[in-house]
Amino acid sequence: MKNHPKTDEDSIIPLPVQKVKGVHTSAHQDLLAIEEPLEIRLGFYSEGKRKNKSISITMRTPGQDFELAAGFLFSEGIINGFDCIENIRHLDSHGDRGRQSNVVHVELVPDVGIDFNRLERHFYTTSSCGVCGKTSIEALQLIGCPVLPDDSPIIKSATIHRLTEALLKAQTVFGQTGGLHAAALFDHGGKLMALREDVGRHNAVDKIIGAKLLEKRIPLLDQLLMVSGRASFEIVQKALIAGIPVLAAVGAPSSLAVELASNFNMTLLGFVRDNRFNIYSEAWRIKMDDTEYRMQDK
Amino acid sequence: MKNHPKTDEDSIIPLPVQKVKGVHTSAHQDLLAIEEPLEIRLGFYSEGKRKNKSISITMRTPGQDFELAAGFLFSEGIINGFDCIENIRHLDSHGDRGRQSNVVHVELVPDVGIDFNRLERHFYTTSSCGVCGKTSIEALQLIGCPVLPDDSPIIKSATIHRLTEALLKAQTVFGQTGGLHAAALFDHGGKLMALREDVGRHNAVDKIIGAKLLEKRIPLLDQLLMVSGRASFEIVQKALIAGIPVLAAVGAPSSLAVELASNFNMTLLGFVRDNRFNIYSEAWRIKMDDTEYRMQDK
Repeated sequence: MKNHPKTDEDSIIPLPVQKVKGVHTSAHQDLLAIEEPLEIRLGFYSEGKRKNKSISITMRTPGQDFELAAGFLFSEGIINGFDCIENIRHLDSHGDRGRQSNVVHVELVPDVGIDFNRLERHFYTTSSCGVCGKTSIEALQLIGCPVLPDDSPIIKSATIHRLTEALLKAQTVFGQTGGLHAAALFDHGGKLMALREDVGRHNAVDKIIGAKLLEKRIPLLDQLLMVSGRASFEIVQKALIAGIPVLAAVGAPSSLAVELASNFNMTLLGFVRDNRFNIYSEAWRIKMDDTEYRMQDK
Repeated sequence: MKNHPKTDEDSIIPLPVQKVKGVHTSAHQDLLAIEEPLEIRLGFYSEGKRKNKSISITMRTPGQDFELAAGFLFSEGIINGFDCIENIRHLDSHGDRGRQSNVVHVELVPDVGIDFNRLERHFYTTSSCGVCGKTSIEALQLIGCPVLPDDSPIIKSATIHRLTEALLKAQTVFGQTGGLHAAALFDHGGKLMALREDVGRHNAVDKIIGAKLLEKRIPLLDQLLMVSGRASFEIVQKALIAGIPVLAAVGAPSSLAVELASNFNMTLLGFVRDNRFNIYSEAWRIKMDDTEYRMQDK
């Protein structure tokens, strides 16, 4: 599939391991998910002058650094679209251009204003109201995060039941290492559109949103996001900013994830596995129907 | 057990949910893990003057905020022990003393020096060497993180095989919501010493290390830390700073987690479940033996 990691060599590494079963040990080569730090640096204009600022260092699985950087900036509300980005490049640690480094420089177009307070607050607070789940949600309203529309596609229950298997089947790196979180986009018929994997679950979501941002495919109003883990506030926030109307998680949601989804008209599904799932908000988008939506084109 | 959450009301909330099985739906009350932001503020002295600084806002499950704050500060290398803390209290958002708020103020004793660069770098970089896994490990050496000793207790394989079941059994909130990560300390005979749960896996580890810091029980050279998820660089780092010689994970480790554990003489175990586990480093601490170490005292 074209949106997979370029090569598995980017994401996995063989390491010696002792496998124990009962009291018996045996030596093996095991494949592990690679984890390396990534620094995101921003180049921008402030009062007519060009400035640089390091805004984030995160542990990630190498491979789609530009997508991760673009997706992080967008889904955290630091930039509001593709047009804010002048270019993205790798730098080495000393600021020189480098091909496969752990520093990504995102150069913004001259007229983008950056709210550096937002960077520090991460949506969790508003200056007037303090710190609580309610104000975390209000902060998203304040930055103009739109409510999802009522006319997005209806999804059949049979489609939802197929998602987890489709996700696992597509998770090539996970299959080899068991060590990666996945985020995947499906269309409303259940066709896999894109998949990203990472040691960090936020990163997997940032990568897939960043990929679509760089393809100028945001908002994703006709798509469904599936995540391999749990649905937290931040995962819902990221999906919301990308305009994704349905979020499905293999694991459980948190209380605040449900509250946020309800406030913005998002359908939130949890425990999607074994021919079951739970609907936590906006159940009207799901139609109980066990017929196939259409033939899968593979 | 005395170290459990004070009450389940702190950690879970009932919410309506539609459960779908095949094409059949039914309405239920579901129990969800509570997620709320926590701001950690630091009070300290700089050049003889008292200052305050907000250093972190994290999404967490309420319940053990003082432990979380203390554990975060210690396991991120911002303070180096219990003696640095003058007192910890809840504040409301406006800085007034509040009983159950989402702001925790940690007042440090007057002579503690804070390296605010460290706060921003999170161990991932050294100013001279840039950004990579290798320098992330060197940074830990630079702050004087000690190598774990060679004389820590040997653990029987039978003890390791019992850990996952013991963890699941003790995870009361998880049992009800399926939505929480856990971190637990065991002694070398496999006796559960403490358990903490949180929507964030780092938070669960910070809480348990913070609890022991506040009991003045650091370093934990005779204990084993078990985590319900995967073993990343940051989880190994936190265990290392707390002096824990054995880290066991239900899930997979990352490449950098193994490298860090190897460098500091830590035994790292992964995929600990179903009478199997993998040893990624320092296998000498594990003895293949299926006899019980001692009777469990419950």
